[in-house]
Amino acid sequence: MDVQPVLERALDGERRSIARLISLVEDGGHELGDVMRSLHSKTGGGYTVGITGAPGAGKSTLTERLIGRARQDGLKVGVLAIDPSSPFSGGALLGDRVRMQSHATDPDVFIRSMATRGHLGGISLATPEAIRVLDAVGNELIVVETVGVGQAEVEITDACDTTLVVVNPGWGDAVQTAKAGLMEIADVFVVNKADRPDSKNTVRELKQMLEMSEEDRHPEIVETVATRGEGIDDLWTSIEKHRAYQEEKGLLEARRRRRIEREIKEIVVARFRHRVDDVAAGLVDELIDRVVARELDPYTAADRVIAALPSEA
Amino acid sequence: MDVQPVLERALDGERRSIARLISLVEDGGHELGDVMRSLHSKTGGGYTVGITGAPGAGKSTLTERLIGRARQDGLKVGVLAIDPSSPFSGGALLGDRVRMQSHATDPDVFIRSMATRGHLGGISLATPEAIRVLDAVGNELIVVETVGVGQAEVEITDACDTTLVVVNPGWGDAVQTAKAGLMEIADVFVVNKADRPDSKNTVRELKQMLEMSEEDRHPEIVETVATRGEGIDDLWTSIEKHRAYQEEKGLLEARRRRRIEREIKEIVVARFRHRVDDVAAGLVDELIDRVVARELDPYTAADRVIAALPSEA
Repeated sequence: MDVQPVLERALDGERRSIARLISLVEDGGHELGDVMRSLHSKTGGGYTVGITGAPGAGKSTLTERLIGRARQDGLKVGVLAIDPSSPFSGGALLGDRVRMQSHATDPDVFIRSMATRGHLGGISLATPEAIRVLDAVGNELIVVETVGVGQAEVEITDACDTTLVVVNPGWGDAVQTAKAGLMEIADVFVVNKADRPDSKNTVRELKQMLEMSEEDRHPEIVETVATRGEGIDDLWTSIEKHRAYQEEKGLLEARRRRRIEREIKEIVVARFRHRVDDVAAGLVDELIDRVVARELDPYTAADRVIAALPSEA
Repeated sequence: MDVQPVLERALDGERRSIARLISLVEDGGHELGDVMRSLHSKTGGGYTVGITGAPGAGKSTLTERLIGRARQDGLKVGVLAIDPSSPFSGGALLGDRVRMQSHATDPDVFIRSMATRGHLGGISLATPEAIRVLDAVGNELIVVETVGVGQAEVEITDACDTTLVVVNPGWGDAVQTAKAGLMEIADVFVVNKADRPDSKNTVRELKQMLEMSEEDRHPEIVETVATRGEGIDDLWTSIEKHRAYQEEKGLLEARRRRRIEREIKEIVVARFRHRVDDVAAGLVDELIDRVVARELDPYTAADRVIAALPSEA
């Protein structure tokens, strides 16, 4: 596709063109570099909030409430819901997106599910690129919602300025939260479905876990009942406090620098993957046969692929 | 370290040496290639079962029960618990591993937590390598347990021959399972904590979701109460049936071939990452400054890194 007119219309705020740019990120097409080169100078105005937590924790409902809260302040909002690449969840998530339709007719809210179909940098490169699109077209708040809670989800929230970790009372104890690697990444804990009787226990356990930490971090813990809109103002205040704290201490810039470093390296590696795929296509079947027959091990097979790579980058 | 004697002792079954080989996989040290080259010809005797599901779903307890069931058949068992790289969860998981100590004195059970500390291929390359270690030293059943449920966890279970997806009644509806991308990867669904009143609803919802699928797959659904050991024989039978079905249809070999192809490519890319890291160290700080100042975009910065790479692989 000729990206230049799409780019211009997206920067003018045309929703269909913004959606096409995000599809381009998903597919990892060769035009992507040009798009990113053009967009970069327009970015820097958006603040990014990541939301992670187990399936069913209420992340989508919280996202919807946060959109509503941000709109009260007149902010333009972009939402990315990160899906695994799955024909199944495509349908299910479509249904889910429908739940956010209270904002569907609002021209200042843009909601989009994203998977990584062909992007060789995977979701950890596609996420910052999609955020860049939403930033460049003028969104002041960008919400990134993950579907699951795991290693890749930690990377996804790495691309955000403030990370919310959503837990439920009775979800398992706070130890489960620690096991999933969520203690370190949470800037704010959200205990959602806080109308359940054991909510206070969950808050107390989280506090104890945080006190045990050697790190000098004090994420706030906010109780919400997202389905009824309870606690959303408190959550909004916690996000703003975390933002102000980071800006004051210079932490936001440090965080964004680390992110750019990672992104540059991932772009380099993704470009290399293209070369490997090209070479491997003609070579790998025979190598696999020999690895299966145990005549060859995968490391030696990798040596053969490397030897076959053209030397120019 | 001199890996040759460690390798020999590991193949003789010395536990401390097996643990050292897995540490080597975690660190991604330069000796790793040699170790993998030596081990490959000894592999092929192990069958790998992956267990994924939300934190708190009961995966560790199920793993412990499966170990017990496999031991009844006299099988030698290796267990890998995949952790996010986290100082916090290190402690928490240690506590968790203690729960498996009913098998601690059994010489035919080897349990090990694994993170990826330095491996540039990340957990998706480290997992098949650690499985290879456990296979080569004679384990007949290898259980790989993930901590969370997300995109990386899907990749981890990709390295396994049979994947169990553990859900709980009341965990959220079956739609949540689909959203998390779990419908396609489950070879067997385990509804654990099936003594809860809404267990039958969860089973029914899963069945409905599976019927809606266009794929010709029929994963069994097994109800268990892992804490009391209930349903474990049924689960074992389902795993054996899935194995027999795959072997009969030639699906197991196809699955293992895809895995080897992915692994070869990941080794090539991981080796390239080493080169990028070397070059980037002296270059990236200045590039980041310019990207932050928006004089340069990340793609152009990546071009500069590529131009600085030495051409030899």
